[in-house]
Amino acid sequence: MPEVVFGVDQSKSMRDQDVPGHNRWHPDIPVVATVRPGDEFRLECRDWTDSQIGNNDSANDVRDVDLSVPHMLSGPIAVEGAEPGDLLIVDILDIGPIPQQSGPVSGQGWGYTGIFARANGGGFLTDYFPDAYKAVWDFHGIFATSRHLPGIRYTGITHPGLFGTAPSEEMLARWNRREQALIDTAPDRVPPLALPPLSDGALAGTATGELAARIVREGARTVPPRENGGNQDIKNLTRGARVFFPVYVEGAKLSGGDLHFSQGDGEITFCGAVEMGGFIDLHVDLIKGGMEKYGVTTNPVFMPGNVEPRYSEFLSFVGISVDHDRDVNHHLDATLAYRRACLNAIEYLKKWGYTGEQAYLLLGSAPVEGRISGIVDVPNACCTLYLPTEMFDFDIRPGGAGPAREDRGQCAVTS
Amino acid sequence: MPEVVFGVDQSKSMRDQDVPGHNRWHPDIPVVATVRPGDEFRLECRDWTDSQIGNNDSANDVRDVDLSVPHMLSGPIAVEGAEPGDLLIVDILDIGPIPQQSGPVSGQGWGYTGIFARANGGGFLTDYFPDAYKAVWDFHGIFATSRHLPGIRYTGITHPGLFGTAPSEEMLARWNRREQALIDTAPDRVPPLALPPLSDGALAGTATGELAARIVREGARTVPPRENGGNQDIKNLTRGARVFFPVYVEGAKLSGGDLHFSQGDGEITFCGAVEMGGFIDLHVDLIKGGMEKYGVTTNPVFMPGNVEPRYSEFLSFVGISVDHDRDVNHHLDATLAYRRACLNAIEYLKKWGYTGEQAYLLLGSAPVEGRISGIVDVPNACCTLYLPTEMFDFDIRPGGAGPAREDRGQCAVTS
Amino acid sequence: MPEVVFGVDQSKSMRDQDVPGHNRWHPDIPVVATVRPGDEFRLECRDWTDSQIGNNDSANDVRDVDLSVPHMLSGPIAVEGAEPGDLLIVDILDIGPIPQQSGPVSGQGWGYTGIFARANGGGFLTDYFPDAYKAVWDFHGIFATSRHLPGIRYTGITHPGLFGTAPSEEMLARWNRREQALIDTAPDRVPPLALPPLSDGALAGTATGELAARIVREGARTVPPRENGGNQDIKNLTRGARVFFPVYVEGAKLSGGDLHFSQGDGEITFCGAVEMGGFIDLHVDLIKGGMEKYGVTTNPVFMPGNVEPRYSEFLSFVGISVDHDRDVNHHLDATLAYRRACLNAIEYLKKWGYTGEQAYLLLGSAPVEGRISGIVDVPNACCTLYLPTEMFDFDIRPGGAGPAREDRGQCAVTS
Amino acid sequence: MPEVVFGVDQSKSMRDQDVPGHNRWHPDIPVVATVRPGDEFRLECRDWTDSQIGNNDSANDVRDVDLSVPHMLSGPIAVEGAEPGDLLIVDILDIGPIPQQSGPVSGQGWGYTGIFARANGGGFLTDYFPDAYKAVWDFHGIFATSRHLPGIRYTGITHPGLFGTAPSEEMLARWNRREQALIDTAPDRVPPLALPPLSDGALAGTATGELAARIVREGARTVPPRENGGNQDIKNLTRGARVFFPVYVEGAKLSGGDLHFSQGDGEITFCGAVEMGGFIDLHVDLIKGGMEKYGVTTNPVFMPGNVEPRYSEFLSFVGISVDHDRDVNHHLDATLAYRRACLNAIEYLKKWGYTGEQAYLLLGSAPVEGRISGIVDVPNACCTLYLPTEMFDFDIRPGGAGPAREDRGQCAVTS
Repeated sequence: MPEVVFGVDQSKSMRDQDVPGHNRWHPDIPVVATVRPGDEFRLECRDWTDSQIGNNDSANDVRDVDLSVPHMLSGPIAVEGAEPGDLLIVDILDIGPIPQQSGPVSGQGWGYTGIFARANGGGFLTDYFPDAYKAVWDFHGIFATSRHLPGIRYTGITHPGLFGTAPSEEMLARWNRREQALIDTAPDRVPPLALPPLSDGALAGTATGELAARIVREGARTVPPRENGGNQDIKNLTRGARVFFPVYVEGAKLSGGDLHFSQGDGEITFCGAVEMGGFIDLHVDLIKGGMEKYGVTTNPVFMPGNVEPRYSEFLSFVGISVDHDRDVNHHLDATLAYRRACLNAIEYLKKWGYTGEQAYLLLGSAPVEGRISGIVDVPNACCTLYLPTEMFDFDIRPGGAGPAREDRGQCAVTS
Repeated sequence: MPEVVFGVDQSKSMRDQDVPGHNRWHPDIPVVATVRPGDEFRLECRDWTDSQIGNNDSANDVRDVDLSVPHMLSGPIAVEGAEPGDLLIVDILDIGPIPQQSGPVSGQGWGYTGIFARANGGGFLTDYFPDAYKAVWDFHGIFATSRHLPGIRYTGITHPGLFGTAPSEEMLARWNRREQALIDTAPDRVPPLALPPLSDGALAGTATGELAARIVREGARTVPPRENGGNQDIKNLTRGARVFFPVYVEGAKLSGGDLHFSQGDGEITFCGAVEMGGFIDLHVDLIKGGMEKYGVTTNPVFMPGNVEPRYSEFLSFVGISVDHDRDVNHHLDATLAYRRACLNAIEYLKKWGYTGEQAYLLLGSAPVEGRISGIVDVPNACCTLYLPTEMFDFDIRPGGAGPAREDRGQCAVTS
Repeated sequence: MPEVVFGVDQSKSMRDQDVPGHNRWHPDIPVVATVRPGDEFRLECRDWTDSQIGNNDSANDVRDVDLSVPHMLSGPIAVEGAEPGDLLIVDILDIGPIPQQSGPVSGQGWGYTGIFARANGGGFLTDYFPDAYKAVWDFHGIFATSRHLPGIRYTGITHPGLFGTAPSEEMLARWNRREQALIDTAPDRVPPLALPPLSDGALAGTATGELAARIVREGARTVPPRENGGNQDIKNLTRGARVFFPVYVEGAKLSGGDLHFSQGDGEITFCGAVEMGGFIDLHVDLIKGGMEKYGVTTNPVFMPGNVEPRYSEFLSFVGISVDHDRDVNHHLDATLAYRRACLNAIEYLKKWGYTGEQAYLLLGSAPVEGRISGIVDVPNACCTLYLPTEMFDFDIRPGGAGPAREDRGQCAVTS
Repeated sequence: MPEVVFGVDQSKSMRDQDVPGHNRWHPDIPVVATVRPGDEFRLECRDWTDSQIGNNDSANDVRDVDLSVPHMLSGPIAVEGAEPGDLLIVDILDIGPIPQQSGPVSGQGWGYTGIFARANGGGFLTDYFPDAYKAVWDFHGIFATSRHLPGIRYTGITHPGLFGTAPSEEMLARWNRREQALIDTAPDRVPPLALPPLSDGALAGTATGELAARIVREGARTVPPRENGGNQDIKNLTRGARVFFPVYVEGAKLSGGDLHFSQGDGEITFCGAVEMGGFIDLHVDLIKGGMEKYGVTTNPVFMPGNVEPRYSEFLSFVGISVDHDRDVNHHLDATLAYRRACLNAIEYLKKWGYTGEQAYLLLGSAPVEGRISGIVDVPNACCTLYLPTEMFDFDIRPGGAGPAREDRGQCAVTS
């Protein structure tokens, strides 16, 4: 077991740890540990919400979640010798829930998936599912099942939703500027187009005083993926994956968290993954001057591992960039095309007795693949969603006597 | 070998065949053959352009291609007993280039990939590559190589770009209406937002006289995917795949073509696949009333086969929905995110000596995967492009002594 | 399509072709075509028995097959510059049944699997199945089904059972000597321990007169695999595979045939594969002095391709080196352990309504994997047989209401 | 984390645990815990030798290992309601090294592979490698590397080497009888053909007095696989696998251990796996009367999971049943054929600078596949060994400038 360079007591908030982490991006958040190229080490992580969500049958906690808190990150970890322009190699050696524990904190043998209410977060299908819902998943070694989604068992592709290097001061300013410009195009939209810096709920790591105040004031929110990686939510960054992060500041300042037991491509319910606290073991190395050398100047590059569970049979749904509700055509809009593929999958699953909410929760959390199939055939983009048939304990394929509609209960709802 | 129900003499245009096919969607195109549920049969297909492109080192033919002609389809094939509301099961038993022949027609041992000029078709990166380019691929059994892309060999995921059932009269009218509405938002755009019915170049199958005139006048262009399937360009519809098409007219009226020896997700150069004429062997069956029964009312559903070549190592590129050229943020725009992932991949490949055009041609035609990774993390969508490392005859991974930059020639250009 | 350097008229015996092949190994069989390193070319092949078996419902032809005839090989093909000590690289670019034909010859849309009678050939389980049986398989593109094995459909891993270079004179003498020594240990055994040279039925290619007589007299039988490759029956030598053959004579003299639409590991019924005539497209190259350089001095080395159909779910049977019929222990005998695994699988399949013969035919021909799992745990070797569950159209897994026993008919039997 | 029903203090011998396990098979070993069908639970396990081997650079401990001790098993666990004739379903939910610990006991961050001396255990190639050797492996999450095998890193297929139900009294007597009969055919052989009951070193669980004495006197050795499962060493019994064990006594009495971080098919060095202590999480269930119902009467049946690391490129070695050293032919001897495939692989690896011992250690421990390819082509069986090329940090394929021979050190040797 590698050395723990960032430890967490899961019975306490990230704010109350001996060495707290952070929930904003800023170049000046103080380093909490330093490692060298070639080192292997462990980070312990809190759940992204700092464990606001409980193992129960009510979605009230999802409805009322305080979104000024996420994502609670472990770090920053400095890498000796890292300089702007380098590529930081990060190998994911292992990752998992909170080891050797059962309990009330997500990651202690269980995790959850939430549909966020339109009024508090929203999600990919918030126009169709404006209320809050939740599913709790029990871990059985590599498998997950849910009392809220009977008939389903799958092997998670466990991964961190969020890892990144610190932005430079210049880059941070650029982020804030361009995101504010977007917000300004529709400042009253619900949910908002983007999230500006917010001092409420902010945690500046070990910074104090004026430094902490500045970090809180300027720090970028952790929600989107950006040039430093960040909340990429790429489900294939699992065990065995190697990521090459651009380095923008001295020491690289690597931070991460938001561990997922599983997630479908797109993480469509917003909190679509199976969320948990846990641990991640990393190995780091450097390619000096790698950004220019390899032309990796804008976003990370990665190599997925070869240990993902592989399925050989899928039921696949197609969507195109037509708003069928209003019969309106959009031009090569992959976002819409994927939304339609998701809606088509939900309609299908409803025929077997799942509620729409259950189906939506499933698509966000199970190891489904989302593909951009055609993106040039004007005017319609074509996206496809691949559902592994093996995760159902009944035969989900079309054919035979028609769908076996059963009462499959309901997920956790609000009261 | 199954019975050939639609034959093609590859030395002649589709217009001059004994039984010609068609290149517009219309419910009244006369049936050319009738099959029964349970039947297996073969269709022979012309290349999508009716073979306008040659096996040579000039991209002039791509630049000057007549886009009123595509896609030249084989069919319509009626299925006995098919009625609106049914699902038509289509199994792809086999598919390949023109069998047992070498020659000047694409599919006779070779195929091509084209970058279309902005002024005549365009493509996913037309703002970055406004001119016409071409790569010719030689087939070596399951492998493809190109004199225009040295150092690369891959196994194609051979598939038809386009298959579909006939639209009903009502559906056809709806298509034309909603696409014209889109065109009307920017009628002078180059390339156009969508393509309206066009009598130039139209081929109405075996229809003649007034019927042919009406088909030509009303018939929808074949470029986009729509509710009937159509030009979905899903590379995973390969051997062993099973598609469930909605049926909108009596007899279903299945047509198809646009065979691809290989294609990357998105088919980003517009003519991005390795295009060819060839054959396809199908098995059909019916699920009576299947659309309502399974909730498959808007688009086809499919199950990919288990014989795709599988790669275990990928180099993957990330893109987010930021226009980095102008530093402008867009809201959850997966199209832009995938475009950025493609551009990032191209920058990387250029470091190894490929020209941008070569890299672009490669991404369109090789078996690359395009994924929607994150679609809810406001404001940035995150898309990823997976490049199999094994198709290069050198080590394409980052690391070691830096990229092995070599003179890798150039693709076919215009004169 | 590559040049055909060895053509076959499938309506005629190999003996009556314009350029006949051969059915014995000998260094002096005249070369029929010469290729150069880097060349691609096609060989057409007869079925291994020269088409003695028919598409019918009687196993009499299997019972009475003339075993002096197999294997009818296409070749020898000389490779320019090949010298003893080189490694001959052979890439399998493509392979398939007889193209574009239907008819009475195996490979014309169909193939067969036979259980040979103990008195005429035998097989791996001949003590349990001493009589002749047959299953005829119909090809549906990549799939095979059989009227003699209802409920089953699989994707074949198509491959040549037999390919090899010519032995040197010295090597041929060694083969004949060591195999005769084995025969001499039990000269009257039925079936025999090995097969000595036999002039009956022999075909010496284009040789005539005294040369032909000598080849027939000395030529090694083609049944076993040997140092030159030969009848290795490795199902994974499919499309995309690369084989490195040792070269023992000038020009290498490559010959091959015995094409299989599919085969299970071990090819346990002797004629266990789905046998067919057809074609194979090859690319060849040389590694000069490669045998010594790489230490490949005794047998070929190969790299399987990445286009095998992959299954994700298997039902696996274990066998150990105990003769449970007689309760006798054998010492680390993998042959016995695999036999027991096969017998265990057959018992299982019988519970679902298949006859023992049907099950035996299935294990020989379907894409099952046979593994040596443990080979050191004295006294019991442990072998395992992996049956893909997806090839059954019912749920073959243990559990639930017990096996769904149905009348599944019978294979072809003798009269 | 599931309840630990069998715990181990890794600082103590199995003999000194509060509840000790056992190292012989006997129906009367007292049950240490009882579970119910549907339960999930954890077993903690000692290394198979009870941790006789150290993390050092000498093979003396392997040479001098006390082989009366293995395998130290955890159990027996009774399953409520299990009766003779049932099938016991065992799902492997998770498995791993000793969690959260580093230290001197194998499984605390490291494991080892040993070549046993001919005089003390032997192995598959003991005629070629009669002395003791060792490699120590370091665990890096899912990866293993060894200072004794530079240039290699692979993902282990972690699994238990040994699990089984208790034999009935009758079955135990049968084992002892038939194995003694084998021993009697060559009573002085070194290594012995089989291992009879042995009181030295025996541990009878919690039994005491006369019961313990009888168990020690009659108990079958744990080395071979038998009808109850036992030391099957099937590397594919990894996470996600489901095993169906025959039940021979009331309560089934499940025991297991001998955890392997990784192993090659055959486990050819005898102690060929990467051996370790650790934990395993199981789920159990029952199929009442399942043995007769499914015809599973002789050996377990299993379904491997879908989370094995998958490799897409292999270098494969062929072996046939010829003793090339003496030029003697054996009849369809798969054991010999696999031995020759192993020897061929070793010769190949030596050309790259590995010693024969290093290569032998690698083949035993890395995720190589061993296949029975042809088993009917008289007189030669054909076996194949598949080596994943991706585990080498250099290009191991033939071709180019010849093998890159380097000084690759040596494994641990005896002094």
